Amino acid sequence: MENIATKGYGASGSLIGGETLKPMDFERTPPQVNEVLIETLYCGVCHSDVHQVENDWKNTIYPCVPGHEVIGRVTYAGEAVTKFKIGDIVGVGCMIDSCKSCSACYEGEEQFCEHPHGPTMTYNGYFVADGTDYNTFGGYSNNLVVKEDFVLRIPEGLDITKAAPILCAGVTTYSPLNHWGVKAGDKVAIVGIGGLGHMGVMIAKAMGAEVTAITSKEEKRALAGELGADHVIVSDNENEMKQYERYFNFILVTIPNPFDITPYINLIHRRGNLVTVGLLAPYDKPLNNMDVASQARSVGGSLIGGIAETQEVLDFCAKHNILPQVEMINIQNINDAYQKIKDEDVRFRYVIDMNSIKNEA
Amino acid sequence: MENIATKGYGASGSLIGGETLKPMDFERTPPQVNEVLIETLYCGVCHSDVHQVENDWKNTIYPCVPGHEVIGRVTYAGEAVTKFKIGDIVGVGCMIDSCKSCSACYEGEEQFCEHPHGPTMTYNGYFVADGTDYNTFGGYSNNLVVKEDFVLRIPEGLDITKAAPILCAGVTTYSPLNHWGVKAGDKVAIVGIGGLGHMGVMIAKAMGAEVTAITSKEEKRALAGELGADHVIVSDNENEMKQYERYFNFILVTIPNPFDITPYINLIHRRGNLVTVGLLAPYDKPLNNMDVASQARSVGGSLIGGIAETQEVLDFCAKHNILPQVEMINIQNINDAYQKIKDEDVRFRYVIDMNSIKNEA
Repeated sequence: MENIATKGYGASGSLIGGETLKPMDFERTPPQVNEVLIETLYCGVCHSDVHQVENDWKNTIYPCVPGHEVIGRVTYAGEAVTKFKIGDIVGVGCMIDSCKSCSACYEGEEQFCEHPHGPTMTYNGYFVADGTDYNTFGGYSNNLVVKEDFVLRIPEGLDITKAAPILCAGVTTYSPLNHWGVKAGDKVAIVGIGGLGHMGVMIAKAMGAEVTAITSKEEKRALAGELGADHVIVSDNENEMKQYERYFNFILVTIPNPFDITPYINLIHRRGNLVTVGLLAPYDKPLNNMDVASQARSVGGSLIGGIAETQEVLDFCAKHNILPQVEMINIQNINDAYQKIKDEDVRFRYVIDMNSIKNEA
Repeated sequence: MENIATKGYGASGSLIGGETLKPMDFERTPPQVNEVLIETLYCGVCHSDVHQVENDWKNTIYPCVPGHEVIGRVTYAGEAVTKFKIGDIVGVGCMIDSCKSCSACYEGEEQFCEHPHGPTMTYNGYFVADGTDYNTFGGYSNNLVVKEDFVLRIPEGLDITKAAPILCAGVTTYSPLNHWGVKAGDKVAIVGIGGLGHMGVMIAKAMGAEVTAITSKEEKRALAGELGADHVIVSDNENEMKQYERYFNFILVTIPNPFDITPYINLIHRRGNLVTVGLLAPYDKPLNNMDVASQARSVGGSLIGGIAETQEVLDFCAKHNILPQVEMINIQNINDAYQKIKDEDVRFRYVIDMNSIKNEA
C-alpha cells in the first residue's frame, strides 16, 4: 500500500503567538500487518488539546494535529489483525503504542510505560516500538493508522455521535474512582463540572456513590442536578462548603488550572482521598500538612488510564446508559470552539463531526 | 482521696521568649472509679514537646507540662478498674480521653474524635467527657491519673528503660505503614533518621519490607545501616537520589520542619504513596500535580494512632525485639536536651529517668 494522503487540521506554531488551527495535508505510513486503517467519524475536543497546541507543557512538537477521542470505522485490517474487521466501529483514545515489555505495560497500565519516551501518545507522540522517532498526528483528520492492541471496541448500543469523549474524559475520571476504591454508599464529590467533571458525576453515581457536584458557577447548579448529582455546592458559598467539612470519602477535582487546594482538603473525611486530574502544573499554594495529617488524608493525582481500563469504561458506560453531553461542530469551527473552552462556555464537550473535513479542498 | 500533690517540670510561657522549663508543683484530681494512679518511671522527650512549649502551633495553654511517652507503675486502681492492678507496669501515650460516642471513637480511632475539642491530649488538652475544660499536665511529672481505657499494657520482655518512645514515635510511624498497606517485599523509604525515623526503619524492616533510609547527614549513613536499613541515601547526593527515581512503593517522611517535597515525589513508584508525619505546617513549595498525576501517586499525612493501635505497636515491638535507641537523662537536664533536639544532636531519643524528680525539693 502506498502512503495514505490525509486531510487534517493542525497548528504550525503556538496559538498563543496568534496562530490558528488550519487545514493541513500530510501522509500516513500504510498499516503494518498488525495495524488497522480507520476512517475518522467523530473526534472529541479535549481541554488538553488546547493546552497542547498552546504549548502550555513546553513539550509540543509543531506542526501539531490534536485529537485523542476518536470514533471511526475500520476500512482496512492488516493480515495479522484478529480482533477487528472492515466495517467495525472502533475507538482510539490517548495512546496508540507503548513498549509492551516493561512492568507497567505488562500490568496493563501502558500510560506509565517505562520506556524513556513513555507510551506513544495519539498526537504529539513518538513511535517507540520500532525505534524510530516521529511526531504523531491525531484525530482532527480523516483517518488514523493504529495497532490493533490500542484500538477499542465500541459496544453496541452506545450512541457513536456522543461516545467519543468517553475515550479520554471517561477513562480519566473512571480510573481514579476505580483505583482509589470508590464503592456503593461512599460519599463522593466531583469538583469542576465541565468535560471531565460531568462524566465523573455520572460514573460515580453509576458506581452507587452519593454524589455531590461542586462548581464555581451558580448557573451550573441546575445542570449538575440534571446529571444526577444528589447535592450541589457552589464553591464560593462559604456556608455550603462549611456544611460539608470532613464529609467526603473521595473527592475528584477536575479544575484544569492552578488553584488553592486547601478549601477542598477540609471537605475530606478522615482517611479519605482527593485526586486531581486535568491539572498538569503546581497548585497555587503549598499543601498544609497540618490539614492533611490531622485527618490522615491523602492528595493524589491521576492521568488517563490503560487500554484495558479504557475498554472497561466504554463497556461500563454502555451498561449504565452513560453518554457525554456534547455539542456537535464542524472542523471549520474549531478555533471558535477553543476560545469557548477557554471561556468555560461549553456544555460539556465539543465533538467534531469529521464528515465536515470532506468540505476542505 | 484528697487531691494529689504532684511535682513536675513545665514552662510558664513560650521558651522562645527566653523561658526555660522549671520545677512546678501542682495538684491532680484523685482517680475516679474507672481511673488508675500511675507513678511515672520513664518519660520520652518528643520533638512535639519542643514545638508545644515554644507555641509553634499557636495553641499552647501555659503553664505547659509536656510528656506523652510515659512508662509507669500503677499505685492505685479505682474500684471499677478491671484491666489493671496495683504494681502493673503500664504505658500512657498521646491521649488520655475522648468522647467515646462519635464514629471515630467507635472505630477505635480516638485520635480523630469528632468532639469539638477532639480527644483529650495527655498534655495541653481538655477533659471533655465530663464537660469540664481544663489544661492537662503530662508525664514530665511524678504521677498521672488516667482512665483505664487509655492505659496501655507493657508486654513482658520489653525493656522499660527504653520502651517509652514506642508510645508516640512508635505508633506514629507504625500507623501509616500499617494503614497504607505496607507488606513484605515492598520497597519502603524512611526519610529523616531521628526519633521517628529510626523507629520507622526498624518497624518497616520487621514488616518484611526492603528498607532504604534517606538522611540529610552523611554522618548518619553508618547509623542507619546499623538500624537494619538495606540501603542508605544521603538526600543532597543527586546521583543517589536519581538512582532511586520511581523506586519506592511507600515513603514515610519524618522531617519535622517545612521542606520541599518535590525531590521525594520523584522517588515514588507508580500508584505509590508518600506520607509525612511530624510536620504540622505547610510544605515549602506548592505540590506539582504534574509530578503526582504522571505516576498516579499520592501524598498523605498521618498523626499518632488510636489506643488499640498503640497497644498493637507495643506488642509488635516486643515480638520483633524492636527497641528505641535512647539516651537517658535526668529531668534537671531537660533544657539542654531541648537545645540538642533542635540541633538534631540526639541518638535518637531522650528518655527522662523520672526517679530524678525526687531530687527536687
